[in-house]
Amino acid sequence: MNILDLVVGEPVKTTDERAEQIGPTQGVPIFGLDALSSVAYGPEAALSLLIPIGLLGVRYIIPISAAIITLLVIVYFSYRQTIAAYPSGGGSYTVARFNLGAPAGLLAAAALLADYILTAAVGISAGVGALVSAVPSLLPHTVSLCVGVLMVITILNLRGVRDAGLAFSVPTYVFVGTLLITIVAGVLRVLLSSGHPTPAAPLPPPPRMTEAVSYWLLLKVFASGCTALTGVEAVSNGVQAFREPAVKNAQRTLTVTIFLLAVLLAGISYLVKTYGIAATDAGQPGYQSLLSMLIAAVFGKGVFYYLTIASILFVLSLSANTAFADFPRLCRAIAQNNYLPHAFGYRGRRLVYTYGIVVLAVLCGGLLILFGGVTDRLIPLYAIGAFLAFTLSQSGMVMHWRKNRGRHWLKSALVNGLGALVTGITVVVVLAAKFVEGAWITLVFIPLTIVFFTAVRRHYHSVKILTTCKVPVHAESLSQPPIAVIPIDHWSNITRQGIEFAARLSPEVIALHVEPTEHSELLQEDWERYVEQPFRTAGKEPPKLRVLPSPYRFIIIPIIQFILDLSEKHPDRSIIVVIPELVEDKWYEYFLHNQRARLLEWMLLVRGNERIFAVSAPWYVGKRT
Amino acid sequence: MNILDLVVGEPVKTTDERAEQIGPTQGVPIFGLDALSSVAYGPEAALSLLIPIGLLGVRYIIPISAAIITLLVIVYFSYRQTIAAYPSGGGSYTVARFNLGAPAGLLAAAALLADYILTAAVGISAGVGALVSAVPSLLPHTVSLCVGVLMVITILNLRGVRDAGLAFSVPTYVFVGTLLITIVAGVLRVLLSSGHPTPAAPLPPPPRMTEAVSYWLLLKVFASGCTALTGVEAVSNGVQAFREPAVKNAQRTLTVTIFLLAVLLAGISYLVKTYGIAATDAGQPGYQSLLSMLIAAVFGKGVFYYLTIASILFVLSLSANTAFADFPRLCRAIAQNNYLPHAFGYRGRRLVYTYGIVVLAVLCGGLLILFGGVTDRLIPLYAIGAFLAFTLSQSGMVMHWRKNRGRHWLKSALVNGLGALVTGITVVVVLAAKFVEGAWITLVFIPLTIVFFTAVRRHYHSVKILTTCKVPVHAESLSQPPIAVIPIDHWSNITRQGIEFAARLSPEVIALHVEPTEHSELLQEDWERYVEQPFRTAGKEPPKLRVLPSPYRFIIIPIIQFILDLSEKHPDRSIIVVIPELVEDKWYEYFLHNQRARLLEWMLLVRGNERIFAVSAPWYVGKRT
Repeated sequence: MNILDLVVGEPVKTTDERAEQIGPTQGVPIFGLDALSSVAYGPEAALSLLIPIGLLGVRYIIPISAAIITLLVIVYFSYRQTIAAYPSGGGSYTVARFNLGAPAGLLAAAALLADYILTAAVGISAGVGALVSAVPSLLPHTVSLCVGVLMVITILNLRGVRDAGLAFSVPTYVFVGTLLITIVAGVLRVLLSSGHPTPAAPLPPPPRMTEAVSYWLLLKVFASGCTALTGVEAVSNGVQAFREPAVKNAQRTLTVTIFLLAVLLAGISYLVKTYGIAATDAGQPGYQSLLSMLIAAVFGKGVFYYLTIASILFVLSLSANTAFADFPRLCRAIAQNNYLPHAFGYRGRRLVYTYGIVVLAVLCGGLLILFGGVTDRLIPLYAIGAFLAFTLSQSGMVMHWRKNRGRHWLKSALVNGLGALVTGITVVVVLAAKFVEGAWITLVFIPLTIVFFTAVRRHYHSVKILTTCKVPVHAESLSQPPIAVIPIDHWSNITRQGIEFAARLSPEVIALHVEPTEHSELLQEDWERYVEQPFRTAGKEPPKLRVLPSPYRFIIIPIIQFILDLSEKHPDRSIIVVIPELVEDKWYEYFLHNQRARLLEWMLLVRGNERIFAVSAPWYVGKRT
Repeated sequence: MNILDLVVGEPVKTTDERAEQIGPTQGVPIFGLDALSSVAYGPEAALSLLIPIGLLGVRYIIPISAAIITLLVIVYFSYRQTIAAYPSGGGSYTVARFNLGAPAGLLAAAALLADYILTAAVGISAGVGALVSAVPSLLPHTVSLCVGVLMVITILNLRGVRDAGLAFSVPTYVFVGTLLITIVAGVLRVLLSSGHPTPAAPLPPPPRMTEAVSYWLLLKVFASGCTALTGVEAVSNGVQAFREPAVKNAQRTLTVTIFLLAVLLAGISYLVKTYGIAATDAGQPGYQSLLSMLIAAVFGKGVFYYLTIASILFVLSLSANTAFADFPRLCRAIAQNNYLPHAFGYRGRRLVYTYGIVVLAVLCGGLLILFGGVTDRLIPLYAIGAFLAFTLSQSGMVMHWRKNRGRHWLKSALVNGLGALVTGITVVVVLAAKFVEGAWITLVFIPLTIVFFTAVRRHYHSVKILTTCKVPVHAESLSQPPIAVIPIDHWSNITRQGIEFAARLSPEVIALHVEPTEHSELLQEDWERYVEQPFRTAGKEPPKLRVLPSPYRFIIIPIIQFILDLSEKHPDRSIIVVIPELVEDKWYEYFLHNQRARLLEWMLLVRGNERIFAVSAPWYVGKRT
């Protein structure tokens, strides 16, 4: 218990939930980290596609960024409305399920689950990858570092929402702060140099043009840039994590996050264009990340440069945290509708959904180990899930407004409708642009997940129907006690305790002795002397001793066989199997005694029927008095 | 069951033991393989120490071989007598224990166990090493190959003695046969060429002399050559595996093994000397094993050469089998005296000591994986154990003859006394020669093992004293039934079945409901309607429903606490905890239902006392009728 208290924290009372709730200050690090951190790779992913068209690429930065930021703003207004409409947590799953029906909800759920697993894995490996490229001597430890970061994030999340928010707020705000300072300083320099600033550090030469500009290329650039929008969904799923007024606090968190994201994206694009910075090829020597070049161009490679780069590394590897905040909540919402195991709905000692956190950690760890900590190939896979969920959620909201025609319902429906349209188009664009690179895997994964969901629900449903009981207890027929069966080896205190207990349960006790090789004369003698005589003296029917032969030296099988035969012979009786069992004092003593009792219990459970009950009669080595 | 039948074979009746017993034809492959295979590395190990003294080394081959063969013959006569005197399996452990007392027996046991584990690991890695040096492309798979060979040997041994003997007899006899043919052909050539044969294939040039001859060097050579004697003990441990007349058959096996070993050692030394073959350095390019050079010198590198080399590889990697035949028997003998867990005494479905085989496989696999399949550094560690055991066994036999003064007892005592003296000297020589190389590890391991043995025995002894029972059953006081406690969640068929069963066991039933967050009004209603009313109608006291609050959302802890309190309040009553439990139809459905029932059972076992009994009331999803 003590170790658990130390690592995960002491249990929190259900009634103390308020203390665990958060405001926007912690909300941004927890639910906004994924979105914010994407400025560290989104623009770069887009611009690196422009390398083949050389210096010309700079020309397209502003229009593409403008398109992405417009999309972001539309999505922002849509989700603001969603939060207000579903204060109990209105992720795409809930909204789509309520307004478009169960299949649409499951589609959104499967898409989002896939997306969160991928986000978590890619975030951690991107952060570790950046660290490793800064300190190459760490390269052989890539996987260990990934797993280490994963464990830190998992434990922080198990400690509860508040602890996670506190831990992540410093790096998040340092990251946002330093980038904002860079952008403001950069813009000032541009203005002071009347539009033609000199970089403080030399920039690499611009790439040569090897390809013509095409609409298809620009579409792919747009699709890559859209990864910056994943994670915007997060706040709407987690409204319940906020303190009252929850809706206002959640909306504020969303506003701050989206505002910061938009400013950062706009500022970076502007400066990149003005300084004429072009992406370098990640596979080639002399590679430098876009942000690294930008900060160096504005400030030179001084203390500030290294502080900013460090905060980027930190935030990238922690961006997985948003997935950890949302995945368990989403799983819980799905489990409440019986589409996932109910365990996802249990709240652990710190009021978080322990199972969801652990399952995400295991899946994410599996991906990281499988890909050796280098998850570049996974990047094309995500964004589809997020945009599919966006589209379903916004379409659902349109239906929601149509059904509950309140004031201004048409305006609200139009906002969400525009969101649905734009994100829907984006899904098609992203899917088309990235299909060959692996996006088709998502198209396979999502239907399989939906099949799994429905199978789980079918199982729960059938169990519910089977167990539902509208019949009262048969109180009249309960007078007949069960037949007690007790397997014994030799006469000992353990045996005696077991027989005394069996005799309390039933006047009809059968003792079983399996005889593989040794002869049972000694036992027969002891039985006569220590059991039969005292019973007769007390004027009671003594228990019967049955000796079972065992030519193959099996012990369990003859006992099971006897019990099944007995149960068949008495179809109206219950049978209680009393299993005398030695309980060791220390765990390592476990190996010194045979564990047949456990095995017999388990075999009875597997091969028995509902009239056969197993009771262990524990005899404690350490608690003799 | 079917897979087990296929891999390990169908169960054998205890009464069919005779069919599983073996004669000398299978005895040599099983119990002699270790000793015989040592001709593939023993002479080489000795001669490679002579490399520094160059051509001069050839001069010392014959006297050193003669010393080793003399030692072998002495040990042979000693063990022949031991087999006759202890027909129920007279390994060093038994003989030393009976005649020199328990501490000497444990010393021999610990030494032998260490030796067998090392022999098994070194044998497998030597065979795989030879294979890998023949086919260098297999080098990256060394560990996998080692583990594969280990698994084959393990499964063959689990299939029983006869199957193992059949499987190993072909390679063993090919190995012995081809080496004998080589020796006979070589000797003929020497005679035909009047003592100066021309090698059929060119030999590598003899090494240059870099060191002077010293007694210390010769002593080390002798100590290295003594590894050829490990495994001679094996037959004496396994007398019971032979068919009647067991003693005669065991002695014949020992005779054949030792005779073949002596002839092979003598022949190889003679030919090596006459052909002037010197060992080459294993670490250097151009390395060739001694036997490879010898066979090539006699026959050239033709088909016969490759057949012989293949059989050597095969036999080397299978030489571990002797350890697998003997280790379990030795463990069983030790376990019979309570120095090891009793599980080592159980005979599995094929009448072999399953636990010993599995434990050896695990330990050996651990060593192989730990050392990456290259166990050269382990070689100095063994031989000490074997010779220590030899010495103790022979000394014990001297005492044996003194006590049972039969006919010719003095002659018998003299034979064993000579054996004890010679092997005792060898222990000192081997220890001195190899101490720095790692033999000291054995000196640490053996006392630790003995401490473990005595701790195990002490535990069994205390449990035996605690459980020994000379008191009859208290038949008078058995009329008071236990208090039945049943934890319930909501009203269902599972609950109903559990309550009906609890009511059969006791008129006093307490139902427990833990309430973490939800309210229990519905349950209270159902309880009133489905339980209390029918009981009242039948004129019986209805079970009580107790609702336990749980501010921290724990379910198990409040139940355990209630039961412990109840047990304290009624120090004269037993408590039976009925745990209603849903048993899934398919294993994967396990994850869909919470496993609190199992956890509660386990917690009751750990935290309960001897008056608290847990019974699971299984409700089968799949067996509804």
